[in-house]
Amino acid sequence: MRIALDAMGGDRAPGVTVQGAFLAAKEGVEVLLVGEEARLRAELARLGASLPIHHAPDWIPMEEHATEVRKRRESSIMVAMDLLKRGEVQAVVSMGHTGATMAAALFTLGRVKGVERPALLVEFPSQRGRTFLLDGGANADCRPSFLVQFAAMGLAYAEASGLKDPKVGLLSIGEEEGKGNALVLETYPLLKDALGERFFGNVEGRDIFLGTAEVVVTDGFTGNVALKLAEGEAKVLLGWIKEALTSSPLARLGALLARGALRKVRDRVDPAQYGAMPLLGVEGAVFIGHGSADALAVKNALLRARSLVAAGLLDRVRAGLSALHV
Amino acid sequence: MRIALDAMGGDRAPGVTVQGAFLAAKEGVEVLLVGEEARLRAELARLGASLPIHHAPDWIPMEEHATEVRKRRESSIMVAMDLLKRGEVQAVVSMGHTGATMAAALFTLGRVKGVERPALLVEFPSQRGRTFLLDGGANADCRPSFLVQFAAMGLAYAEASGLKDPKVGLLSIGEEEGKGNALVLETYPLLKDALGERFFGNVEGRDIFLGTAEVVVTDGFTGNVALKLAEGEAKVLLGWIKEALTSSPLARLGALLARGALRKVRDRVDPAQYGAMPLLGVEGAVFIGHGSADALAVKNALLRARSLVAAGLLDRVRAGLSALHV
Repeated sequence: MRIALDAMGGDRAPGVTVQGAFLAAKEGVEVLLVGEEARLRAELARLGASLPIHHAPDWIPMEEHATEVRKRRESSIMVAMDLLKRGEVQAVVSMGHTGATMAAALFTLGRVKGVERPALLVEFPSQRGRTFLLDGGANADCRPSFLVQFAAMGLAYAEASGLKDPKVGLLSIGEEEGKGNALVLETYPLLKDALGERFFGNVEGRDIFLGTAEVVVTDGFTGNVALKLAEGEAKVLLGWIKEALTSSPLARLGALLARGALRKVRDRVDPAQYGAMPLLGVEGAVFIGHGSADALAVKNALLRARSLVAAGLLDRVRAGLSALHV
Repeated sequence: MRIALDAMGGDRAPGVTVQGAFLAAKEGVEVLLVGEEARLRAELARLGASLPIHHAPDWIPMEEHATEVRKRRESSIMVAMDLLKRGEVQAVVSMGHTGATMAAALFTLGRVKGVERPALLVEFPSQRGRTFLLDGGANADCRPSFLVQFAAMGLAYAEASGLKDPKVGLLSIGEEEGKGNALVLETYPLLKDALGERFFGNVEGRDIFLGTAEVVVTDGFTGNVALKLAEGEAKVLLGWIKEALTSSPLARLGALLARGALRKVRDRVDPAQYGAMPLLGVEGAVFIGHGSADALAVKNALLRARSLVAAGLLDRVRAGLSALHV
């Protein structure tokens, strides 16, 4: 299995992307770097590493409009998608421009049958492990049918991740059926019909970290607000704790003694641990990471992509969608 | 200034409500307990305290439907609102049934001129102090004009809270104008027109804890999800830290030394510190707390109500709304 990495994508590309690819290759991932050959060779030389390169003369900077990709077929992300489409690689990973990656995937690969809108799946640490939420921001306004498709894709992803018997919660502002906004009220009966026992019912904001349901579906506006709020809160809270632990000589000594234990908590909420999140509903395995990714995040993204492709992610998504229409 | 406390509202009423009132009275708040006289007298006797009581023979349990209040004029929350309407008290505080309190307030007091929908203002701790967000859950589906009114009310509240030159951010999924869902895209130009310099522009989920804008407006669905997510995350994260700090003898010793510093962080994110949040846009000062409130939260709610009424909250809200229509 080969994975194409858009080596030009991300705030610190191609430095960290090549580094991350090198780290993943050491763990046995077969990576194909896609990007400007001369620059990638230079980065590889710096690391004393050798990895295969597929040349792409152009790339889409972070500030570019997403729709640019259609005109720029020679850009690294478009070339990577084309390799995926032709079966030369089995997945594409990009740490860059989320919008451009989604546009390139949709344009080149198309949608899985039964999917109206692809969705970004994002991950939260939870008391019971992890919570998978979609849509994380691909579709700001959603129709009830989109959320039903998100649910089927989320279940497929959770199963490919190794979860047994995952359930889907519908994000709302009250547990009872009948609580929520217009979208939730319309979606509830559809999810009940489509998923039966696998539908948990409504969940609330607090359930995301409690891990009440393994998969949570919501529109991409609410999902993206939730994702960024959670990241911001973790950062601020851990900053306060750090501050508190350096506020006095006694606290500093305590912090020193508890350092290892506290680092574990920080790692648990660090987005770099997840690496990249899948764009579900396109005809190919596509993973998108944080633009601010470091080499560790790039490595983790590649490892995760490999394990999900190996677990048959795309076939599971197709099967989940087709089961909705039986 | 007298404040009516719905002494029958909340999961642990009237025990904690009477206790909280007693604590607030010790700090000079003139509290009027509204509820079943015999039960309130018994609670007061247990504390060896004496506080004025206004008898109300009925109350609305937490599981009751909010619309019940219209039929139950003798319930503590309806009696309290009536006292406010007649000017016998200057504010109502309830730790109970949010829906019933909102319904009672709307029914008895009516709306401030220019307000289509009252909103709940909720508070988040932030790196720069506090972030006031509305709507926290009163209106699951909103129109752009509602959000403009929320912005004016939020500014009035922020100023009554003592903030200088507060700004309003529109919660969205990208900083640039043109990012967001349909509601945000329609609301942006309206806020720009209505607020001028006081409109910060779009903010994202992460900005709530960063404190980028002092006031954040969003629909009540997104706002309520954000509130409960933030509370759940704080609880889970602090739980993990506690776990980490007791995971080894060394960490335990460290935790002991850093205990005071860590408690400060916990207090900073504890909802009880805020006590209660205002229902803005009704013709009276109404504050609603967590149903799970303890006596400290009840006391803080009463103190906060007093300080905001003293700062002319209602007049400021009226002025803010009327300025929208100049």
